[in-house]
Amino acid sequence: LSVSLTLALDAMGGDDAPDMVIGGIDIAHRRFPDVRFLLFGDESRLRPLLAARPQLAAACSVHHTPDVVTAEDRPSQALRKARNSSMRLAIDAVRDGAAGGVVSAGNTGALMAMAKVVLKTLPGIQRPALATCLPTLEGETVMLDLGANVESDEYHLVQFALMGADYAHTVRGVANPKVGLLNVGVEELKGNEIVKAAGQILRAANPPFIFHGFIEGDDINKGTVDVVVTDGFTGNVALKTVEGAARMFTEFMSAAYRDSFRARLGFAVAKPALTALRAHFDPRAYNGAVFLGLNGIVVKSHGGTDEIGFANAVVSAINMIAERLTDRIVADFEHFLAEVVPDSKAAAS
Amino acid sequence: LSVSLTLALDAMGGDDAPDMVIGGIDIAHRRFPDVRFLLFGDESRLRPLLAARPQLAAACSVHHTPDVVTAEDRPSQALRKARNSSMRLAIDAVRDGAAGGVVSAGNTGALMAMAKVVLKTLPGIQRPALATCLPTLEGETVMLDLGANVESDEYHLVQFALMGADYAHTVRGVANPKVGLLNVGVEELKGNEIVKAAGQILRAANPPFIFHGFIEGDDINKGTVDVVVTDGFTGNVALKTVEGAARMFTEFMSAAYRDSFRARLGFAVAKPALTALRAHFDPRAYNGAVFLGLNGIVVKSHGGTDEIGFANAVVSAINMIAERLTDRIVADFEHFLAEVVPDSKAAAS
Repeated sequence: LSVSLTLALDAMGGDDAPDMVIGGIDIAHRRFPDVRFLLFGDESRLRPLLAARPQLAAACSVHHTPDVVTAEDRPSQALRKARNSSMRLAIDAVRDGAAGGVVSAGNTGALMAMAKVVLKTLPGIQRPALATCLPTLEGETVMLDLGANVESDEYHLVQFALMGADYAHTVRGVANPKVGLLNVGVEELKGNEIVKAAGQILRAANPPFIFHGFIEGDDINKGTVDVVVTDGFTGNVALKTVEGAARMFTEFMSAAYRDSFRARLGFAVAKPALTALRAHFDPRAYNGAVFLGLNGIVVKSHGGTDEIGFANAVVSAINMIAERLTDRIVADFEHFLAEVVPDSKAAAS
Repeated sequence: LSVSLTLALDAMGGDDAPDMVIGGIDIAHRRFPDVRFLLFGDESRLRPLLAARPQLAAACSVHHTPDVVTAEDRPSQALRKARNSSMRLAIDAVRDGAAGGVVSAGNTGALMAMAKVVLKTLPGIQRPALATCLPTLEGETVMLDLGANVESDEYHLVQFALMGADYAHTVRGVANPKVGLLNVGVEELKGNEIVKAAGQILRAANPPFIFHGFIEGDDINKGTVDVVVTDGFTGNVALKTVEGAARMFTEFMSAAYRDSFRARLGFAVAKPALTALRAHFDPRAYNGAVFLGLNGIVVKSHGGTDEIGFANAVVSAINMIAERLTDRIVADFEHFLAEVVPDSKAAAS
């Protein structure tokens, strides 16, 4: 693939940074040799890592940053204090047009707060939302918001629906994404007032995606829709609930394997099939949540990921920039959101 | 065990009723021969089923009811129309003191509405909540509310915490239950206003359980706490999300098993361990959600369950009546809730 663009990296974010970051972009570099990387971090640590990778080094420029946002920093603290941090300066590079997007495995709250203040939301978008992909029986689904907001009104949910559909379309190649609103039942009368109002808006409007209607929690992994829309509180709980259920299942599987000699033998024979099964649920394959709705692509990698997981977050950021996801959200605002969200035209101007 | 009490049954609720109901109470009868069953339903269908089980028949009395609440009936319709239904008359038997509780596999919304109107809430309890047990890495956890309410304020959450702790204590035998509030982070500052306020009340008060603080979605299956407290919207989504994740996992396991001759061979050898694993997640073992907070025990069985699942719902109802769960909630109201929930004393009188 010949993709030519520039990506900024918070090289100091994450448990195993900067080694994991350099290892990750090295993997991404082999897939996208024309992509340039702006590395923000401790020069004395980055230079030796790049010296060992001359091909990657030619695609990188290093920008020394003295500070680091830690996992303990509160978002408000990070905003005030960390103006010379690797995270902040990587985001600034996106604002200044030097890069199309940024990837960080650092403090989520700080990244969210800084990105919102520095990059601002796109015209027509009142709140950015955090989205990721999840495995389903049918393939994958996009879910948002995963916790960028703790409370959402019906218009926020409608904006999330649009941004999620654009993400599924541009990044995952779903021509006509099916969007569902997460609820406690599928009938129109079910749910709280906000979900019911969002359902009414989407049913009455003519959105640039298929509005499937309400879905329930078990529809997430069933793959009923391409995009699962919900408020940040419910979405955060649902995402972590899936992660917890997957962990319980794999731990019980491992325990079953240790159960007896016979079990160990059987699982050894079935190993290729089990390895394929495990790969299907490899959390590294789903690493990288994107903040949708900002002037620029902002991808959050899991802090505890390794270079393979980080590479996946980098590749998804490259795809979103190359497919011009933000342009598409802006165009959809003009054609759809401005009609259904009151005052959004005024808010956007 | 010598447990002597009376249980009312909606013998017509559920996909395979009344056969599944009679089969279920037959299993429960062998465990609790001194429990009496009041069967509400179509006499012409119940009599032949009992005739084939003379021992069970001696523990039953049949009350003919001409009407049935269907799965399609709206709660409000069922309340108005179905005064002679098996569901309604079984609940009436609890109100009249003829039975200590009722089990139904019928329409959830109708059961919830009827039980609330007929039985009324316990003194000090503003809203009943739906609770069930879930498997965890550590054993089991109780989760509530699962959808009896679509919106809850902080005082409702505090009442749910108390009722969930009483359930864990009396029915599951947890001497000092650990209770967690489901949230989007564990820090005190995380979450929406309602969850934060409920956390403050529980931290400041001296509840008759261990308040663990906030928990996240992955703590549900991790078994971090004995009781997971949340609003009905989030709880319903989280429960169904766990169910959907479990289904995805087992379907992928089955697909891995069919993957190749080698996989089939390996899984055949490991079968005893896999059977034990599957038993651990058997949804029939977790069948039966209880409406807590009413004047009487009301247990909802899955509509699609078989007689083994229905028997589990019946056994859990028997346990709750025998352990005097409602008395304990009333006592806790007097010792704890009346102090922390404003106006609850007035509301109770």
